[in-house]
Amino acid sequence: MVWLKALLIIGDGMADRPLKELGWKTPLEVARKPSMDHLASAGVCGIMDPIAPGIPPGSDTATLALLGYDAFKVYSGRGAFEALGWGIKVSEGDVCFRCNFATVDENLTVLDRRAGRIADADASKLAESLKKVKLSNPNVEFLFTNTVQHRAVLVLRGSKLSPAVSDSDPENVGAKVREIKPLNGSPEAAFTAEILKELAQKFHEALKTHPVNRERVARGQPPANIVLFRGAGTLAKIKSLNEVYEVNATCVAATSLIRGVCRAAGMQLVDVKGATGTVQTDYVAKAKAAVQALENSDFVFLHVKAPDVASHDGNAKQKVEVIERIDKMLAYILNKVDLGETYVALTADHTTSCVTKNHEGDPVPLAIMGPYVRCDDIEEFGERTCAKGGLGRLRGKDLMPILMNFLGKVKKFGA
Amino acid sequence: MVWLKALLIIGDGMADRPLKELGWKTPLEVARKPSMDHLASAGVCGIMDPIAPGIPPGSDTATLALLGYDAFKVYSGRGAFEALGWGIKVSEGDVCFRCNFATVDENLTVLDRRAGRIADADASKLAESLKKVKLSNPNVEFLFTNTVQHRAVLVLRGSKLSPAVSDSDPENVGAKVREIKPLNGSPEAAFTAEILKELAQKFHEALKTHPVNRERVARGQPPANIVLFRGAGTLAKIKSLNEVYEVNATCVAATSLIRGVCRAAGMQLVDVKGATGTVQTDYVAKAKAAVQALENSDFVFLHVKAPDVASHDGNAKQKVEVIERIDKMLAYILNKVDLGETYVALTADHTTSCVTKNHEGDPVPLAIMGPYVRCDDIEEFGERTCAKGGLGRLRGKDLMPILMNFLGKVKKFGA
Repeated sequence: MVWLKALLIIGDGMADRPLKELGWKTPLEVARKPSMDHLASAGVCGIMDPIAPGIPPGSDTATLALLGYDAFKVYSGRGAFEALGWGIKVSEGDVCFRCNFATVDENLTVLDRRAGRIADADASKLAESLKKVKLSNPNVEFLFTNTVQHRAVLVLRGSKLSPAVSDSDPENVGAKVREIKPLNGSPEAAFTAEILKELAQKFHEALKTHPVNRERVARGQPPANIVLFRGAGTLAKIKSLNEVYEVNATCVAATSLIRGVCRAAGMQLVDVKGATGTVQTDYVAKAKAAVQALENSDFVFLHVKAPDVASHDGNAKQKVEVIERIDKMLAYILNKVDLGETYVALTADHTTSCVTKNHEGDPVPLAIMGPYVRCDDIEEFGERTCAKGGLGRLRGKDLMPILMNFLGKVKKFGA
Repeated sequence: MVWLKALLIIGDGMADRPLKELGWKTPLEVARKPSMDHLASAGVCGIMDPIAPGIPPGSDTATLALLGYDAFKVYSGRGAFEALGWGIKVSEGDVCFRCNFATVDENLTVLDRRAGRIADADASKLAESLKKVKLSNPNVEFLFTNTVQHRAVLVLRGSKLSPAVSDSDPENVGAKVREIKPLNGSPEAAFTAEILKELAQKFHEALKTHPVNRERVARGQPPANIVLFRGAGTLAKIKSLNEVYEVNATCVAATSLIRGVCRAAGMQLVDVKGATGTVQTDYVAKAKAAVQALENSDFVFLHVKAPDVASHDGNAKQKVEVIERIDKMLAYILNKVDLGETYVALTADHTTSCVTKNHEGDPVPLAIMGPYVRCDDIEEFGERTCAKGGLGRLRGKDLMPILMNFLGKVKKFGA
């Protein structure tokens, strides 16, 4: 009996627009990528709007869509995915935030949104102190955890909380820290904004005079004298992939936000040594982890953050190099997996333009190879070649049913 | 800093089906249209279902969709768009109608649905008299305004009104004027039908003996002895384009229905001397107005009614000529706008068949050119060539997000 499996490989932000510096081609179009082209040749291709035509997806909404969920219906903010991605248990009703240790002057103007990319050791000591802060309302608890460098996660727990509160993070250096405001007229939103303001104030007080920050200043480093909050979110109410398709599903990803979405979908998370979410990530280590995960999983989601990082830096040359490294990763995979029983799909979670350095709403290319796909005549994996493929133009949330149907995992609708 | 802009050009009913008299080609396929073909060559093409596959769109629903609205959700009848298009202020709760001055015999059989395309001067005098009609219910007001020739607009204002009432216009000569009926069981629909019946009766009484009509009969012209009502509608509850995309948007259109939809979308309306909504419209004057509007607008919607007029007349030869004139209009535009910062899109709001003389549910061709589009290999603008283009098959409501995304005006969904 053949055990059919599927591997979905996501190059984060890998799609692009034609770039003048690349002779009006895209990074995918100029990269040497024999394995991706082989996948396109041997498979069926198409283009895909991760969310909908023209809508720039976030990494979280795009991943939800690529896992088969209707992001418009289930998305409930970034915060809970960040917390889940760091292994924090999030319960219904919790309101979670992505946080940054940052540097402000005495007027609360942001001087450095990352406090000089503060080292983990310093951030851990500061976080330990912040855990001792007491809220005046005994019915609300908070959990605060630093993660990597300046990054941290906050969870507010208690009844009557709401994620409808604004960010304090102004997102730009030179801007003042924003006042946290309720985003609707509910008493819950007003209450949550008050709690958060109190916490922001008490964190700031505790950090200003903290010995770690005195040492940082003495060493000429920016003090981590404030915590900025953003992306309030609650747990998305979604069924696990196992509930929807009766599959064992595994995620190989380094980015906490992506790991969080996959955890919310009930997937197993694999930790890969050397997988960093940067352009220097260990591509082959990720490939090995994915191949290994396929031994015990029906579905493996392999995510590589690097092309998005290069795009946000506007570095087209580096994006091409990253794509070529992903191609080698794919070569390893295609060499190792049993192609008689494995469907391999390759796509991007969104277009990221090296010109605008932002996520864009243009569609992404998609190729699927496997035992019974209706192979078309496309021979190159790219934004424009795939547009002529046999899959036509799809929505992101349609991909998972297509893959799961190849595995015989989608229930018949009707009699 | 580059100010990115978009110009959307609509040839009303420009798409068609293959016609025997054109050697089984469509008017677009036989027309000489070098500028449209250049736009297709330099841009990315596709086909588009303005509403949904197989659904013949109205001009109002198609325009709503092309401006990015979900017409299935927001459409609330034609009447309010007609009123808005004539500059009448429409408030929430008002029920509006498109009206015709028409000619009936003593049995209320329609002899001429347009009262011999009555001249504006005659229609104005008749309308003045009708404004003096008194409704028996003091809680309902009405506004009645003649517009062009036989055309007029009626607005009912008061609480407890409903647009769920049938038309009195039978739409065919030789048919009797239809009784106005409530279209659902609500007291509001019944009440509105009664008001409308009273008004129809009182208008008929006032017109029958009106001196203007006596003079018309004496001159051998059909008397405008009745007003026919149709297209009951209320204000569509839509956000303006400025609210949705933070853009300044301008409409260049002569047709009142289209102008009304654009006004409902919060767009500025430009009046163009010589733009008549007929096949003899001043195409270059419209082009000039659009180019000028682009100086102060992020988005310009340029609508040409003429191909729909030729189609409703079943005049394929004239439709070809009209398309060739639109091509010259496009040549002017492409010559004048800065193509380094302007996205230019060309499409139709629906297919109108020269055989059936009706709007049809077939898709329309679409081409978009601009700085960062993923140019494909399509070299001719037409229903069948564009079907092979890089955009694939879209819905009308997806076009606006696609254009606005090129302008950086669509907010990211998610983090």
